[in-house]
Amino acid sequence: MSTKPAVVLLSGGLDSATVLAIARSQGFACYALSLDYGQRHVAELNAADRVAQLQGAAAHKVAKIDLTLFGGSALTDSSIAVPEAPTEGIPVTYVPARNTIMLSLALAWAEVLGSRDIFVGVNAVDYSGYPDCRPEYIAAFERMANLATKAGVEGLHTTIHAPLIDLSKADIIRSGTALGVDYSQTVSCYQADADGRACGKCDSCRLRHEGFVAAGVPDPTRYQSA
Amino acid sequence: MSTKPAVVLLSGGLDSATVLAIARSQGFACYALSLDYGQRHVAELNAADRVAQLQGAAAHKVAKIDLTLFGGSALTDSSIAVPEAPTEGIPVTYVPARNTIMLSLALAWAEVLGSRDIFVGVNAVDYSGYPDCRPEYIAAFERMANLATKAGVEGLHTTIHAPLIDLSKADIIRSGTALGVDYSQTVSCYQADADGRACGKCDSCRLRHEGFVAAGVPDPTRYQSA
Repeated sequence: MSTKPAVVLLSGGLDSATVLAIARSQGFACYALSLDYGQRHVAELNAADRVAQLQGAAAHKVAKIDLTLFGGSALTDSSIAVPEAPTEGIPVTYVPARNTIMLSLALAWAEVLGSRDIFVGVNAVDYSGYPDCRPEYIAAFERMANLATKAGVEGLHTTIHAPLIDLSKADIIRSGTALGVDYSQTVSCYQADADGRACGKCDSCRLRHEGFVAAGVPDPTRYQSA
Repeated sequence: MSTKPAVVLLSGGLDSATVLAIARSQGFACYALSLDYGQRHVAELNAADRVAQLQGAAAHKVAKIDLTLFGGSALTDSSIAVPEAPTEGIPVTYVPARNTIMLSLALAWAEVLGSRDIFVGVNAVDYSGYPDCRPEYIAAFERMANLATKAGVEGLHTTIHAPLIDLSKADIIRSGTALGVDYSQTVSCYQADADGRACGKCDSCRLRHEGFVAAGVPDPTRYQSA
């Protein structure tokens, strides 16, 4: 097994927990990075910490950047309500430039670690209409990253791995289950309570539950009303 | 005069103060953004605040993200000394992915403001060997930004303006002087003291002083030993 270092963006949700398992299964020593951006609850960050430990990450860091400074999203502005029904177009839970900011921080850590591999759990199928979850976006970020860095100047290629990008939620759950991911420890809900129990109503809860049903895997999510 | 909003990255140094003056002269309402990334001194951020006020910025925000979390640079790791003589290749003052992180945050604010214009003071001539100051990097960031955002999906083009990119330090100083920039209020030094007085020895001080000499403009910098 190789022990090449990789930086893995870890939100504490179902997708990024699966990505961490995939990166580990490929032999990478995984440096998990979470972003504390002023999201509505810290349950997600607690989940990230549990997932990083359970899956044997080499390290887990939390970068704090308060995106409530800019607002503009239901996740960073408490005056904007989280929708509880599917919406048309790009939803209000979209956080402007969030994936770009997270990948930029991952790029910084990768460069310091001497890592040429960054893993991110973006997904273009159940992507909820977010522009920064599309394959063409990831390709453009990778191209920019290779011009931005010392490593790039030295001819060392950095790869942005997005192994879930073409998978359905059910496929993601099947992959993770095969790799032993304990999804009961993950939190996907946009408005989880302090104990990490999900609302069962928001877009993210709905997509997640439908995924378990479609995968034929019992949904281990802890719900607030359960 | 147009009052289109623009986000202007403002470090408190000579280059970004000039960029702010250029953006204003083009009729933009300027939203100045500084990054508190754990740099060695806060004199730079105090200077950014003075410059934003003197030049009539519509707003000035400071985003705090502690890049000492990753280290890897003389500016974010106190165990790495700031060099006091020119060095070969990419210097230790290079902060991994700093411009990418700053531009990503500017992109977030621009999207919330409905702005399609971001100004940054990168410079490829006196660029001290930083990879993320090259024209091809800026072009790649712009391309990525237009795939990352809601505005991009809606067909609205975002432009990354780098008006200094081909200018010598002397040209920058001449442009800013013509636009009334008060350079005595700016701090470029990598190791300024608490009052913002420059060391006069680091790469950044050397390039700045040579710029004033070449421009035929008296150097208004306050030095520690003066």
